[in-house]
Amino acid sequence: MSSTVTQAAVPATSLKTGLEVRLAARNKTLQAHTSGLAPSYIQANLIVLPSRYADDFRLLCARNPVPCALIAESTTPGAFASLKSHVRHPDGDGTSELRLAEDIDLRHDFPRYCVYRDGKLAEQTADLEAVWTDDHVGFLVGCSYSFEQALAAAGLPPRQVVQGRNVAMYKTALPLCPAGVFRDCTYVVSMRPYRAADVERVRDLTRPFVSTHGEPVAWGWDGARRLGIEDITRNDWGDQSLRLDGEGPFDESEEGYVPVFWGCGVTPQSAVVDAGLSGTIMAHAPGYMTVLDVRDEDMFPVLRK
Amino acid sequence: MSSTVTQAAVPATSLKTGLEVRLAARNKTLQAHTSGLAPSYIQANLIVLPSRYADDFRLLCARNPVPCALIAESTTPGAFASLKSHVRHPDGDGTSELRLAEDIDLRHDFPRYCVYRDGKLAEQTADLEAVWTDDHVGFLVGCSYSFEQALAAAGLPPRQVVQGRNVAMYKTALPLCPAGVFRDCTYVVSMRPYRAADVERVRDLTRPFVSTHGEPVAWGWDGARRLGIEDITRNDWGDQSLRLDGEGPFDESEEGYVPVFWGCGVTPQSAVVDAGLSGTIMAHAPGYMTVLDVRDEDMFPVLRK
Repeated sequence: MSSTVTQAAVPATSLKTGLEVRLAARNKTLQAHTSGLAPSYIQANLIVLPSRYADDFRLLCARNPVPCALIAESTTPGAFASLKSHVRHPDGDGTSELRLAEDIDLRHDFPRYCVYRDGKLAEQTADLEAVWTDDHVGFLVGCSYSFEQALAAAGLPPRQVVQGRNVAMYKTALPLCPAGVFRDCTYVVSMRPYRAADVERVRDLTRPFVSTHGEPVAWGWDGARRLGIEDITRNDWGDQSLRLDGEGPFDESEEGYVPVFWGCGVTPQSAVVDAGLSGTIMAHAPGYMTVLDVRDEDMFPVLRK
Repeated sequence: MSSTVTQAAVPATSLKTGLEVRLAARNKTLQAHTSGLAPSYIQANLIVLPSRYADDFRLLCARNPVPCALIAESTTPGAFASLKSHVRHPDGDGTSELRLAEDIDLRHDFPRYCVYRDGKLAEQTADLEAVWTDDHVGFLVGCSYSFEQALAAAGLPPRQVVQGRNVAMYKTALPLCPAGVFRDCTYVVSMRPYRAADVERVRDLTRPFVSTHGEPVAWGWDGARRLGIEDITRNDWGDQSLRLDGEGPFDESEEGYVPVFWGCGVTPQSAVVDAGLSGTIMAHAPGYMTVLDVRDEDMFPVLRK
């Protein structure tokens, strides 16, 4: 599966908050991927399922929280503008929910969407107005873009952010723990190249982001092979990762650098295909996320200085 | 790794409650594995770590809840007789803990223990009295024996229960999501043979047991190979699985039956070896569990008739 990624013409980097990103997506001035936008704000993946699959999906997330960290869902089937948060308020008594976004429309607030019919990608669309029904339940899943600012602040900015590109994503051979109709599914991962000597620091920096994939699932060339990724230049979604100098694809010839892989919130839509689910299912286009009102330190207080 | 399993001489099947099993282990009249004991009571695995590994272990469990469902831990480092439960009371408001056992001693209430030193199995012991220190933190992890009564009640008793044997357990090639010092670790699974035609029913019956491994992670001969299990007759812990007629080992020649694999709470002690952790670490001997005061329907109300 390859994607055709086009950069939007709007100055997306001028969008500084989650709400600004959502409104720009909603009024269609933002059509770009969201890597690097609204730094430190939590970004989120989307999957929208017929209600008959909702329980199994919640179980899939509970059993596979690294790729599928469920952070919110529609308050009721059909609801696209009101969210039940699954994140506890870190400053509360452990019972109150952390509200994630006050003004959100799941049908519009991602710059691009994928629509699946009977387990196959049918089309990409700018919004879900025409396909969303009263029976659809929207789910938000944590996104690794949420920790990119923390990496940058530590002097380890992800290469694709510096280069203004979408992250490279791969379908792996690593099985998900099955859950009801979700069987024969595997992880999707995102990849960022780092110096081998920096991997432990990168692990430490991303570890606190427990509901946005957290620390890597694998790293190094051996790690790539264990995931079943034979050719790092052949990503399944997003943009191909380039060499640091931008001259050609990143691969094993770039001395000192290794691939580092994180769980990826494209996993749910890949699972829909793996499991061959029937009906109309919607998702964000990989890399084209929505951005929430909460910042990384709101969700992960350990980050507070 | 092979185990030497001896059956105890005590009539273990006369033990009907968790407390009876714990007291029998404590006074050393019970030296047998606990598969089939105190039907419907929740059984638990043990890992006891130096406090410096406690945070990383909690994260390992959070990232890998299927093999490592953390249900309780020592209230403070060194505590062996008081537990903080991580299970919410299903009938409460979601904030109160479900108390798991009122009279428990983690050093004595398992029929047999393993002691690891610097990442290697050093000895098996009848209790932990001599090795437990004020710096050790005990963790209880859910156990698949907890759902064996539900399978039996549905007419699908696990074969090893009928045969009075320990379950067969296997080290797999399936990676755990890394967490701090826990890296390069893989799943351990338990295996029970079932008719291929019964697998979906077995999945359904065990699915509600979310904190005792839940539904299987893999099944069938292809599933075995995907886990890296090449020879089903070579288990790493527990007893070899036998044919239904008891004549020789279960293998692919037993027509109509396939292996069904669940996450296994031996995974933490296997992870300690994989990760090469230093110091003295203790665990239950695989298959030799403790049994709690709560029954399956106390923990999983969906089971109530």
